[in-house]
Amino acid sequence: MPVAVPIQATSEQLASVRYNDDGLVAAIVQDHSTSEVLMMAWMNAETLEETLVSGRTVFWSRSRGERWRKGDTSGDRQWIKSARYDCDGDTLLFLVEQEGAGACHTGERSCFYRSFGEGGPAPATTSPPWRATSRSYPYGVSCSPT
Amino acid sequence: MPVAVPIQATSEQLASVRYNDDGLVAAIVQDHSTSEVLMMAWMNAETLEETLVSGRTVFWSRSRGERWRKGDTSGDRQWIKSARYDCDGDTLLFLVEQEGAGACHTGERSCFYRSFGEGGPAPATTSPPWRATSRSYPYGVSCSPT
Repeated sequence: MPVAVPIQATSEQLASVRYNDDGLVAAIVQDHSTSEVLMMAWMNAETLEETLVSGRTVFWSRSRGERWRKGDTSGDRQWIKSARYDCDGDTLLFLVEQEGAGACHTGERSCFYRSFGEGGPAPATTSPPWRATSRSYPYGVSCSPT
Repeated sequence: MPVAVPIQATSEQLASVRYNDDGLVAAIVQDHSTSEVLMMAWMNAETLEETLVSGRTVFWSRSRGERWRKGDTSGDRQWIKSARYDCDGDTLLFLVEQEGAGACHTGERSCFYRSFGEGGPAPATTSPPWRATSRSYPYGVSCSPT
């Protein structure tokens, strides 16, 4: 089982985060070993702090208006390896060890399993390993906290 | 010079995109060769269509309230290799060939060059190549369209 590694952010670092009018900041989650972008969700100041202290991703569900800790229902927990923030502080990037089947409630490893265009993803020669394994999936599904 | 490759999205694919109350959708940009997450910005329906048709990223600047095509000022254009959308359609993911110095107006290749915690990023053994080259940068800078 992965080990939780707390991150001790400085007050200066935390003060660099800019929340939107709803008190939320966008959080991108990327697999630290494959570099696959797994999902994007939202955090408020409390769930960001819990994420850093606990070493697991904790989000704020805009649709349900409540905190959700990734993997509590599904077992697909995300363990933080690195936590970054962008130049203007309004987007976070977490590199994680993804436990279980993946990040998406559909069963896909990444929530970004669908491509625009008939041809789909770029040619296999430039594809990272995860692209080749992405299955097609019916349209119209809705993503839920898992 | 990279070649623009238009993506012909179907109406069903475009209809899967869910815009927020401001008519915007989040767009993550990832380097297609290194898998580095470069930046996150916003698109409206018009700039998404222009992005797909032109093969270059075009965003909507929330702060300036206007369209901006990445690289028109800086030369740091982004050429689309693959365009994806997530399970609930409210986030896009573009894999691009990044031209020039990088995606960030600070001179960093990625906007996510700062880490929470004193120790910085994860150990070098699990680092993709781009992490080792990320320079430190003063806090408090603001990201601008370039």
